[in-house]
Amino acid sequence: MTVRQLPLPDLVAACADLGVPAVGLWREPVQAYGVEAAAKLVRDAGLAVTTLCRGGFLTATDPAERARALDDNRRAVDEAATLGTEVLVLVSGGLPAGSRDLRGARERIADALAELGPYAEAHGVRLAVEPLHPMFAADRCVVSTLAQALDLAERFPARQVGVAVDTYHVWWDDGAPAQIARAGAGGRIHTFQLADWVTPLPAGVLNGRGQLGDGAIDLREWRAHVEAAGYTGPIEVELFNDALWARDGREVLAETVERFTRHAL
Amino acid sequence: MTVRQLPLPDLVAACADLGVPAVGLWREPVQAYGVEAAAKLVRDAGLAVTTLCRGGFLTATDPAERARALDDNRRAVDEAATLGTEVLVLVSGGLPAGSRDLRGARERIADALAELGPYAEAHGVRLAVEPLHPMFAADRCVVSTLAQALDLAERFPARQVGVAVDTYHVWWDDGAPAQIARAGAGGRIHTFQLADWVTPLPAGVLNGRGQLGDGAIDLREWRAHVEAAGYTGPIEVELFNDALWARDGREVLAETVERFTRHAL
Repeated sequence: MTVRQLPLPDLVAACADLGVPAVGLWREPVQAYGVEAAAKLVRDAGLAVTTLCRGGFLTATDPAERARALDDNRRAVDEAATLGTEVLVLVSGGLPAGSRDLRGARERIADALAELGPYAEAHGVRLAVEPLHPMFAADRCVVSTLAQALDLAERFPARQVGVAVDTYHVWWDDGAPAQIARAGAGGRIHTFQLADWVTPLPAGVLNGRGQLGDGAIDLREWRAHVEAAGYTGPIEVELFNDALWARDGREVLAETVERFTRHAL
Repeated sequence: MTVRQLPLPDLVAACADLGVPAVGLWREPVQAYGVEAAAKLVRDAGLAVTTLCRGGFLTATDPAERARALDDNRRAVDEAATLGTEVLVLVSGGLPAGSRDLRGARERIADALAELGPYAEAHGVRLAVEPLHPMFAADRCVVSTLAQALDLAERFPARQVGVAVDTYHVWWDDGAPAQIARAGAGGRIHTFQLADWVTPLPAGVLNGRGQLGDGAIDLREWRAHVEAAGYTGPIEVELFNDALWARDGREVLAETVERFTRHAL
């Protein structure tokens, strides 16, 4: 998503050129290209798929809407398995229109995980519940902290449900390092993502994630936290940023590699 | 601030007309009107002053900047005392330019409170550390949760330092009800403020606070939390909202009274 301006074949080629060994993919471009074809493309290039983003949106109260969401998440599991990634990232969903019941919405996510966890496990895929920054609590994700994500995940086996740790979402939380340790001890850090925090936030706040090194987050310190918790998996860089998307994708990818080396290694 | 378009005399008259018994004031319009004159204005109208907003911005590392901030906060204490309010609200400040050290910034707030607390007490004023929503952590307030605010406040006597509970800032936090109980048990809920959470957030995210009832927050539930914790003080409505500021101030104030009655009582 950091370089969503690159068509899938160009992305794969650019990763190969730059020595990027693995990539996180999003469902929409994968579906547009064809899931089997995308799987072959990355496989032939020797590129691993870190995670598939994203399933989720599991907070609906309407039964038909809820059934559709579960169906869609099973499809996402299938796609992840086809792509050869073990991790499907879940963005849980916000409050239904007119609702003020955060607690109820969080409980419906647990209900959905109970249905999706065994399905994912049967397909060799683990679900990663991603807490999103509290500024998304109403309209995108009622799971706002690692503690909340783990409270949900720990109702299920770690081989079914874990969490995604994203610096952008947790950096402000002085309780997060302890929660990372808790997640690591349970084998539940299913992915680790980097983005920097820059201000002012844009309208809608979705596409203001900062290039590594441009903002307020000590990325190296957070990497040390997940590594101290035993995490040895890939590190993803996930930037939603209108300014980066407007530039040449290969140039942004090269810059991101350089920033990663300078600020996170 | 909800009706900052109203000059101070108009605000005082409108409160009297609508039966609003008390008002929170901001420093800038009070200073522009004259602190003594403003104090006489509200006193003569029989209007109580709930709080003065705001002091704070205590995170600078530069010694001269730091000294200026402490001076300014002592002036704010003086102004609060003159206005006859017992509470000065503090917005702690963000990270200094280029800094990534949240922990250090929070510690400098404690250092400042150690200087300001006794001064405030000597003037009959209590300081209320206000946790701001985590989306403000970098550029406005490194204190993001009630737990963090209380960790700071509890280093000092409750008659010197407590917290401000604002629904807009804490509503997403499932740990906040327990922290409200903690604050109440210590006599540290120094004010309680209402605003609703509406999306999408505007650019810069500062002036997107929603009119009561327009958003995702169960205001009545939060009022129940602070009252269960023993809070019997005033309830303030604090809306930063460009759309409300563009309207007739008396109309907005009347609407706010109606919304307060409908959604918070």
